[in-house]
Amino acid sequence: MDGVTRIESALADSVLLAEAVGAPPRLAAAMRHAVFPRGARVRPRLVLAVAASCGDDRPALSGAAAAAVELLHCASLVHDDMPCFDDAETRRGRPSVHRAFGEPLALLAGDALIVLAFQALARAAVTAPERLPAVMMAVGDGVGVPFGIVAGQAWECEPRADLSEYQRQKTGALFAAAAMAGAAAAGREAEPWRTLGDKLGEAYQVADDLRDAVADEAEIGKPVGRDAALGRPSAVRSFGIEGAVARLRELTAGAVAAIPCCPGQEALGALILGEMQRLLPRKLAQKAA
Amino acid sequence: MDGVTRIESALADSVLLAEAVGAPPRLAAAMRHAVFPRGARVRPRLVLAVAASCGDDRPALSGAAAAAVELLHCASLVHDDMPCFDDAETRRGRPSVHRAFGEPLALLAGDALIVLAFQALARAAVTAPERLPAVMMAVGDGVGVPFGIVAGQAWECEPRADLSEYQRQKTGALFAAAAMAGAAAAGREAEPWRTLGDKLGEAYQVADDLRDAVADEAEIGKPVGRDAALGRPSAVRSFGIEGAVARLRELTAGAVAAIPCCPGQEALGALILGEMQRLLPRKLAQKAA
Repeated sequence: MDGVTRIESALADSVLLAEAVGAPPRLAAAMRHAVFPRGARVRPRLVLAVAASCGDDRPALSGAAAAAVELLHCASLVHDDMPCFDDAETRRGRPSVHRAFGEPLALLAGDALIVLAFQALARAAVTAPERLPAVMMAVGDGVGVPFGIVAGQAWECEPRADLSEYQRQKTGALFAAAAMAGAAAAGREAEPWRTLGDKLGEAYQVADDLRDAVADEAEIGKPVGRDAALGRPSAVRSFGIEGAVARLRELTAGAVAAIPCCPGQEALGALILGEMQRLLPRKLAQKAA
Repeated sequence: MDGVTRIESALADSVLLAEAVGAPPRLAAAMRHAVFPRGARVRPRLVLAVAASCGDDRPALSGAAAAAVELLHCASLVHDDMPCFDDAETRRGRPSVHRAFGEPLALLAGDALIVLAFQALARAAVTAPERLPAVMMAVGDGVGVPFGIVAGQAWECEPRADLSEYQRQKTGALFAAAAMAGAAAAGREAEPWRTLGDKLGEAYQVADDLRDAVADEAEIGKPVGRDAALGRPSAVRSFGIEGAVARLRELTAGAVAAIPCCPGQEALGALILGEMQRLLPRKLAQKAA
């Protein structure tokens, strides 16, 4: 079973729990709407890629860790889209959860998805409980306080915020969690994998800024040119197109160099280089090829 | 260290995590506002009482389980108070979190408290990881889908709901989780403790209805007579005062009878009887004495 199939299957298993007889059906529908159809699934693929490079001898646990990271990502999108934050009408080309199901269910669906991430981990950990604390700590710290994605989002409510810290927490923290959880699920120490995740998170942010500036809407499936239109900080705004591409290259190389010693070190490096090439908007990728 | 001190200390340790240097300070303040000063702490006291009756040989884990259950309870209050649900201006005699910190921070503080519950469990479980899956499952299922308190709240968004199922999920589920998590933290099988928690949850609901109908505001620290004024379903409305008191007695006796065989069975029974007497409004308790 390839990575994408494992991820979709683990997510489907998780969401199924919400659909038990006697459970509120609209909550289950809102959760399903938030998780399917799939987005890029970048973070759970990182979990599985790291686990694979470390031998992945507990695939049920690494699969659950991948699902947990994606469920938490989906929960954060649901809550960030709500009227008190971005008031986004659409997400992945469809109505956002609060548009489709109302604010109360969007609030609860986000809450339930957060809890579901940990329920999935608990259920999968029965065969390797000694690894559960480290996996949970990686995942929990990537999402919660003091420096996870919820903390990152909360910088929007502070009178003063350091931009790079804000972005590192809001986006990078869950990439670090993904890499660390993948290693912990495979029985490795998690901490040495943090730098890889941090660098990939920042690279992903730069790639996203490039896609917003250079790609067309059909290619990336969402409106483009938003950063410039809204005057938002972006790598393209700071460094220009060429500069941002150079920054992306540098971060990717740094990520590859940061892979800790493990059986699949080389293959993981190749995977990351391929992935980053894939994230470049088509016209830049062709130019770079 | 008595139960109340252990609970406050475990909660204080948890919330401290939010206050690390480099973390968004207003998020930490909103979380602290939601957790302190203390409410009745009924659920975490149940966790510790059950753990004690089972030997409580891993007090760090039972303490974290108690804190986790209370953090989740606090999170649910923060989100339930928000404008899209109850739009409550006050809670425990102070402004609700969204009134004091705004809606965005209330949303994020609730999210962060949910995650913090699991972070606390993970940190405490390092000394007894083999018990973590069962503790997490009890806690997670008490909060999430399909039948936890988030699911209970979601029945408010369904066109049709079964009242007793709604109340069982919205209130009872976290009592069941508390009893089960206490047992699991002490190395016992969790499932046999569910009935005790269910019955205590229902008893607590009846006691709350009685206090709303009979107590005065000074005694319980919140407005009284709300159920009658709002035409809400309540045990007093269904059975009258005498009937509700009889129902409370019956549920309490049922709870005591449901305590599984354990070293502290008798002491736990006495504790429950005393606790329920304490929950009765003063004038009814005097009459019953």
